[in-house]
Amino acid sequence: MRILITAGPTREYLDDVRYLSNASSGKMGYALSEAAVDAGHSVTLVSGPVDLPPPKGVTLVPVETTEEMKLACLANLTAADAVIAAAAVCDYKPAVRVSGKLKKTGAPVTVEMIETDDVLAEIGGRKQSQWVVGFALEAENARERGLQKLRAKNCNWIVVNGPAAIASDDNDVELIGADAQTIARFRGSKRDIARDLIALLGEHRQSSG
Amino acid sequence: MRILITAGPTREYLDDVRYLSNASSGKMGYALSEAAVDAGHSVTLVSGPVDLPPPKGVTLVPVETTEEMKLACLANLTAADAVIAAAAVCDYKPAVRVSGKLKKTGAPVTVEMIETDDVLAEIGGRKQSQWVVGFALEAENARERGLQKLRAKNCNWIVVNGPAAIASDDNDVELIGADAQTIARFRGSKRDIARDLIALLGEHRQSSG
Repeated sequence: MRILITAGPTREYLDDVRYLSNASSGKMGYALSEAAVDAGHSVTLVSGPVDLPPPKGVTLVPVETTEEMKLACLANLTAADAVIAAAAVCDYKPAVRVSGKLKKTGAPVTVEMIETDDVLAEIGGRKQSQWVVGFALEAENARERGLQKLRAKNCNWIVVNGPAAIASDDNDVELIGADAQTIARFRGSKRDIARDLIALLGEHRQSSG
Repeated sequence: MRILITAGPTREYLDDVRYLSNASSGKMGYALSEAAVDAGHSVTLVSGPVDLPPPKGVTLVPVETTEEMKLACLANLTAADAVIAAAAVCDYKPAVRVSGKLKKTGAPVTVEMIETDDVLAEIGGRKQSQWVVGFALEAENARERGLQKLRAKNCNWIVVNGPAAIASDDNDVELIGADAQTIARFRGSKRDIARDLIALLGEHRQSSG
């Protein structure tokens, strides 16, 4: 199977130095990439800036902004059998990027933020036979909001986790299908969860293909 | 000599997940810490979140926000003979930090940003006999703005560098004194620059003490 995986955060710049981001470490997406290669799949990893070496055998596409991630994903979508969107993209960006470095004046600065392109919704909207697995990081009403996200973005599966997942080596996730049924619960190291999720994806595609 | 060194970026949160930061890697401050320990100095390293192991022999004080960095520096200031402020702190922060995760609505979001505490100015304002070395990262008119910064923050020396320094292994800096004279120019790896700067600081303190 050819799997397109996204990982890490993206960055959205206010000026040439300051940016908006999040503490996503990329560990989940990199663990998924490694597990997928180990299981014999072909992996394209579209990754925001992280401090992890790319797993052996993946095709790495490094990106910085959400728009770059979207373009890299769409360019690799048709060649993929499945997509796992584990990246934590910046979903807002400053409406204006100041050239150089914003100077301090002592006064408050008002920054207008607009939504970035929705990478997962673009993938879901264009998918043909690809099996699309999204990730939802929710602080509250996680299951309900995860399911809303699955539907809004036309995913096949959604992996729901909480803020404790960020930058952690461990995770505690629920995998939900489009019929709102819980398919599995995984708890433990991101490596173990990645192996289980890739195995489940492989079984599913085998039985449905 | 007991040297207090700051390194890395700080983070200022919009909500529990999103933050404002910069790409400072901490390499300059960590290289300075290592060079200082190698030269026989006692080092306290106040560091924002970076992906570097603390150099052997330093006392590491990890911080996340600018306020935490300020408090850690002031707590360690009186015990220091010199301060080298190599951190690239966030100088703006959202006026309000939203609890949980800001939900997307489709509409633009206006974020009011206020200045954070000025760590270097606080150090400069409270210094007694400490020799204070600041860093200025300037996109344009670097020398002039660096000198303004030296004066505004009551530093003894200022190291002026450009945006190319961010996250790079190399740097190209000018060291300027309070009399506006160029003391030295260093170009090369951050490790080499760190060694030269620490040596110069050691000589200076010996001749003036």
